[in-house]
Amino acid sequence: METWQAMTSRRNVREFSDVAVKPEDLDRILEAGRRSPSARNWQPWNFIIVTDREQLTALAGVWRGAWHVANAPAVVAIIAPVLPSSEQATLQFDLGQATISMMIAAADLGLGTGHASVADQDLARSVLSFPEGRFCSNLISIGVPADGPLTPVKNLNRRPFDEVVHRGRW
Amino acid sequence: METWQAMTSRRNVREFSDVAVKPEDLDRILEAGRRSPSARNWQPWNFIIVTDREQLTALAGVWRGAWHVANAPAVVAIIAPVLPSSEQATLQFDLGQATISMMIAAADLGLGTGHASVADQDLARSVLSFPEGRFCSNLISIGVPADGPLTPVKNLNRRPFDEVVHRGRW
Repeated sequence: METWQAMTSRRNVREFSDVAVKPEDLDRILEAGRRSPSARNWQPWNFIIVTDREQLTALAGVWRGAWHVANAPAVVAIIAPVLPSSEQATLQFDLGQATISMMIAAADLGLGTGHASVADQDLARSVLSFPEGRFCSNLISIGVPADGPLTPVKNLNRRPFDEVVHRGRW
Repeated sequence: METWQAMTSRRNVREFSDVAVKPEDLDRILEAGRRSPSARNWQPWNFIIVTDREQLTALAGVWRGAWHVANAPAVVAIIAPVLPSSEQATLQFDLGQATISMMIAAADLGLGTGHASVADQDLARSVLSFPEGRFCSNLISIGVPADGPLTPVKNLNRRPFDEVVHRGRW
């Protein structure tokens, strides 16, 4: 798919059809995350791909907004190191870069994605077995959208271009 | 360009040819940033697009690693609100999403991008005139790469896929 079509068709998807996501598509999405840029190329992430229904059902309990995880065909859990506050800004910036990279790569494959935060780290750890000294930053649900294919979003709910963009100076 | 080609061709570019970037290409890149997802759709960003050589030369002084800004045909300055520490993680995550979205949109147009942090906020403010209560998060230099067109990166300097990706559990 053309890049601009993929980028403009990406939207939050939280209801998925029952169709499984092809393993090679999941690998492509994970590869997009792996290739993401990061500060001094430190690559502070690990990704756990989950497709087991029992695990996904449990994982949906990590946050009130994570209910869509229970019914998604696949979920990527983004794991990051626990770091001193001086490195938090850089870490979060880079985790954001990896997350949207995976979402754009998914849209390119016709796959919808939904974001979930993680409040209950103990639950996330019990389901995913990541080690101490790491936390689960967020989850990305992945699947074929239940409400029809991704197409370029019209009536986008964003601030107007001319309010966001300044030329030369604010 | 195909999405996967754009995503795999994106690389850090810090030396640019003298060719100006078309205004419509800059608008496309800014639009990619504007369309980025953010927490509760709060869209915490403003973008200042700078193409004036005198401004760019001054702006290159905001950080030792920002030298490429002086010679870039165009630079996007990402401006964000100063927020309490409880909102920093979300802010930085979303600024990362907007930044890489603009970089991928640029790669799709054959344009290279280079990232710069901003240490000297007073200098950034004097060049860009953004109001108190805001800061300049980072700069993105944009232009035609001096060392030849963007092509899919081989010999990528990233951790191995199987080290980054876990299946089911860590």
